[in-house]
Amino acid sequence: MNASEFRRRGKEMVDYVADYLEGIEKRQVFPDVDPGYLRRLIPTTAPQEPETFEDIIKDVEKIIMPGVTHWHSPYFFAYFPTASSYPAMLADMLCGAIGCIGFSWAASPACTELETVMMDWLGKMLQLPEAFLAGEAGEGGGVIQGTASEATLVALLAARTKVTRRLQAASPELTQAAVMEKLVAYASDQAHSSVERAGLIGGVRLKAIPSDEKFAMRASALQEALERDKAAGLIPFFVVATLGTTSCCSFDNLLEVGPICHEEGLWLHVDAAYAGSAFICPEFRHLLNGVERTDLTGAFRLDPVYLRHSHQDSGLITDYRHWQLPLGRRFRSLKMWFVFRMYGVKGLQAYIRKHVQLSHAFEALVRQDTRFEICAEVTLGLVCFRLKGSNQLNEALLESINSAKRIHLVPCSLRDQFVLRFAICSRTVELAHVQEAWEHIQEMAAKVLRAPGEGTAEMQNAWLRKEERRKKKSNGFI
Amino acid sequence: MNASEFRRRGKEMVDYVADYLEGIEKRQVFPDVDPGYLRRLIPTTAPQEPETFEDIIKDVEKIIMPGVTHWHSPYFFAYFPTASSYPAMLADMLCGAIGCIGFSWAASPACTELETVMMDWLGKMLQLPEAFLAGEAGEGGGVIQGTASEATLVALLAARTKVTRRLQAASPELTQAAVMEKLVAYASDQAHSSVERAGLIGGVRLKAIPSDEKFAMRASALQEALERDKAAGLIPFFVVATLGTTSCCSFDNLLEVGPICHEEGLWLHVDAAYAGSAFICPEFRHLLNGVERTDLTGAFRLDPVYLRHSHQDSGLITDYRHWQLPLGRRFRSLKMWFVFRMYGVKGLQAYIRKHVQLSHAFEALVRQDTRFEICAEVTLGLVCFRLKGSNQLNEALLESINSAKRIHLVPCSLRDQFVLRFAICSRTVELAHVQEAWEHIQEMAAKVLRAPGEGTAEMQNAWLRKEERRKKKSNGFI
Repeated sequence: MNASEFRRRGKEMVDYVADYLEGIEKRQVFPDVDPGYLRRLIPTTAPQEPETFEDIIKDVEKIIMPGVTHWHSPYFFAYFPTASSYPAMLADMLCGAIGCIGFSWAASPACTELETVMMDWLGKMLQLPEAFLAGEAGEGGGVIQGTASEATLVALLAARTKVTRRLQAASPELTQAAVMEKLVAYASDQAHSSVERAGLIGGVRLKAIPSDEKFAMRASALQEALERDKAAGLIPFFVVATLGTTSCCSFDNLLEVGPICHEEGLWLHVDAAYAGSAFICPEFRHLLNGVERTDLTGAFRLDPVYLRHSHQDSGLITDYRHWQLPLGRRFRSLKMWFVFRMYGVKGLQAYIRKHVQLSHAFEALVRQDTRFEICAEVTLGLVCFRLKGSNQLNEALLESINSAKRIHLVPCSLRDQFVLRFAICSRTVELAHVQEAWEHIQEMAAKVLRAPGEGTAEMQNAWLRKEERRKKKSNGFI
Repeated sequence: MNASEFRRRGKEMVDYVADYLEGIEKRQVFPDVDPGYLRRLIPTTAPQEPETFEDIIKDVEKIIMPGVTHWHSPYFFAYFPTASSYPAMLADMLCGAIGCIGFSWAASPACTELETVMMDWLGKMLQLPEAFLAGEAGEGGGVIQGTASEATLVALLAARTKVTRRLQAASPELTQAAVMEKLVAYASDQAHSSVERAGLIGGVRLKAIPSDEKFAMRASALQEALERDKAAGLIPFFVVATLGTTSCCSFDNLLEVGPICHEEGLWLHVDAAYAGSAFICPEFRHLLNGVERTDLTGAFRLDPVYLRHSHQDSGLITDYRHWQLPLGRRFRSLKMWFVFRMYGVKGLQAYIRKHVQLSHAFEALVRQDTRFEICAEVTLGLVCFRLKGSNQLNEALLESINSAKRIHLVPCSLRDQFVLRFAICSRTVELAHVQEAWEHIQEMAAKVLRAPGEGTAEMQNAWLRKEERRKKKSNGFI
């Protein structure tokens, strides 16, 4: 394909994308396909001779779209929102064209420098303390990690190295393994499974701190675990505080946890993968309070000691490869630049506020129906709710909702209760969609409540499926 | 921005991208900017109010492009090629529009299933043994990792878990730390720095096996290290064989290394980050020989034991989040699908053959000039060469080439020799560019050879700069 064909095909693709997103509401949000559907539709080997773009774009509708879960449908209320916008897509096109691998400053100076400045823009939008910013002097500074999971892992590895070096400096006879055997990291029992995984990868114990009745990690429970572990000769070194948990968007108490970490010399990592963006709104910024009162090193300014070889960052040049696990990295800050500018801070705040308003609207609808209960405080765009009654009943409700495929939800487990999560996700979701979804849920509930009760074969099967699913649980969702 | 503005702006962006790539040859391949250039050109905070697309696209030329190293310029001969093509860009647009996070089958069935089939297509193109493929039965199967660094790390972690479990099954009193303290991984002294980093992250020793005179890891050196370490009570568990090293594109001897790993029960991981794609050409496939003769588990079929929680993959459904470090993942297989189909296998083979021919053409030019020497066998698209003479002389040559900025190269270090790497990178590079580059290098060489010899202040400074750079070395390039 040469440039002139790309001009033509690219424009066709732009129209296809616009058509897709304009018409996404009319597509069934969750696909009808069974596992293995796709293999039957395409050849078993790559073609020897080139095919045409027409062949492929026809197959997109025939082969791909029938198997797509439409994350940007206004009827998608599952998991959490994943960012997408037209400005972001335009930036991505440019990112693909430049196609640099920004592992060092020289590999593409603009790629490194725009990221540094965009992270400062973000840091200021979040009202982070000055020490978190790169600024002119290059004292702090942020980095875009590929995923939240990697951010947690990188922080844990940095903390592991820091504490190991400190202990070895004091007792040079200590081996790394001897230190690692005693290290303990902590997170709330509501933390995302990627935190547990970071512990496994890093080869250190990770202990779950029982959360309080609001699903928040509090000082007392953390302190108790620390005392017990220190008494047993273990070495606490790392705490993950989650702001906006995956299961129910609860918030660990940073104002309590921060000072403890400071006192005990523990690295405090803040995981705000979902809720973080809401902190650009002044009315939600208080949820991040505690960042200022502690002198945590972590969160955004990842200490690169671990990931460094013998390279020294100068004040002006950051070689981001030392701040992340992979060597390669794309020109991702272009997306931030386009989105920040084309929305403006006010536009982004409005976007978040709309989502929060919609979740409160849904919450109000649920509260008006006495058959239902709200299971956790609604702070941002997530509502956890259930039918008053057994887990089996709620399992059946979810099953009937997701089988009907008019909307899509996923469940979570809160203190052994099977709970439905209603997450405001789509960029284009409006009050009418939320109302329609609620009416649909009510209909499904009526059907389930009319159905033969627990103890029937149907319910037994649902229960078995649930148990199976519970076993497969591997993150905040079930 | 609504859909109709996106239609307009998207098409403008398509033209911008096509213009950029059509005109890339006329842009200076390496930028003139100094560290910190960008911060001075843009505001210190994000705008409160939205800006227009015009504002931004104007700034792309004013602020971004002056700081871009143009990886797709036909005058770019640095590092290694990074894949880019028009079909890939079209696929990426679609990927961005669908914008799903494919961490499980249900999160978007097409995303998982296309990846499984595309990895099979690739496996067959590479003539991998049947056991590496997913096929109908789902026995093997590949996964797209974000980067080669992550692939190595995931393999090392899987191997670490496997050996730890085996040892703990035999001696239940063994702690993980006690096992890890004794584990040893091996790679050639020519392996990429990301292998060393994987060892650091995984908390295990990694030993460098001295490569032979062709920079290849051989049986004898590996066996010797294994015997020595086993005698010292250590536990060898993991070997990385590199096919196509970063510094000089040398090939570890898989036919020798494979059987040793098999005999000793070591996990063998093949890192073919650069050279792997060439194995789709029958004439280069022999470089992968040994994959068949060993029963290695690794390389493509990553044993997910480690990354699994309590989830069982069925034959038909693969939840790829268990096969990688991050939870999130994009719909990356769309790119493979578009590219494989629009090039066809023959088109891809032709692409690779052209690059190899161009590197041999460059090699022939170098060999005709007796002032120069070739430093490593030229197999694929990389030529390592230098002026006969001191490291200082070659350092000065590179310095003068990269200061002139007509072409861009990076150096490497081979047995303490400062060596220039000429890598065929661009999709649009032709013989004329290679010839022009060589003439330019000759001119620069003549200038350097005419210049005051070693011992002058200029040379002393170059030497100091080199030493500094050498210290900063953190991968196969200097």
